Amino acid sequence: MLDDVDHVGIATTDLEAEVERYRRAFDIEPVHRETVESQGVEEVLFRAGTSYVQLLRPLGPDTPVGRFLARRGEGVHHVGYRVGDIRAAIKHLERAGLRVIDPEPRPGSRGTTVAFVHPKAMGGVLVELVQEA
Amino acid sequence: MLDDVDHVGIATTDLEAEVERYRRAFDIEPVHRETVESQGVEEVLFRAGTSYVQLLRPLGPDTPVGRFLARRGEGVHHVGYRVGDIRAAIKHLERAGLRVIDPEPRPGSRGTTVAFVHPKAMGGVLVELVQEA
Repeated sequence: MLDDVDHVGIATTDLEAEVERYRRAFDIEPVHRETVESQGVEEVLFRAGTSYVQLLRPLGPDTPVGRFLARRGEGVHHVGYRVGDIRAAIKHLERAGLRVIDPEPRPGSRGTTVAFVHPKAMGGVLVELVQEA
Repeated sequence: MLDDVDHVGIATTDLEAEVERYRRAFDIEPVHRETVESQGVEEVLFRAGTSYVQLLRPLGPDTPVGRFLARRGEGVHHVGYRVGDIRAAIKHLERAGLRVIDPEPRPGSRGTTVAFVHPKAMGGVLVELVQEA
């Protein structure tokens, strides 16, 4: 059911400095940049094999990533797992008694369809299910 | 230089309960279990495509993962990136001015060779470089 790690989502206060850090550290260039208003973030993606590193800047303090930064500081915000059939995955999680934040999947970046699972249901990890376009 | 996400390392207080949670949530079975005394952890791995989910139990409170749990609670502890040549990767990071915790790589689990990069050098993310056996 877990086809791959789709991405590691990292919350940052200074997106451009963080992009520059990853460029220098790993000698890689960003492959995608997108503002996702519905999720209150601007994101920059770097490829790491079949996965992405996703750097996230909140569009304001009263957004999920803005609140995360105020509470926990910079660091890993969530882990995205690639699934083949997101509706089937949601149903499976719900049948297993796990609290899905988005019982109805919604549009993510890059034309994906996504759904978040509550961190309290996943041992403190905010999990995102990602079905590719 | 980043060949792939090797694993997402998740700190947990109750390893068996967490293993059971991942089994139920994603209908997957563990593929590896190992105690790494030098890192003070017992780990269980699940496959997610070309990556792993790594559940970590500290062997005691006075270990890196034990201290992390006391300070931050359960959640993502570190991100492991697969590299082809770990010594070259360490040199590259050091030349970029980033603080590598292990300038001399050391044995990880599954016969890998690993080196950690300081979270202060990586925007709050504890990064592990992993060269496969």
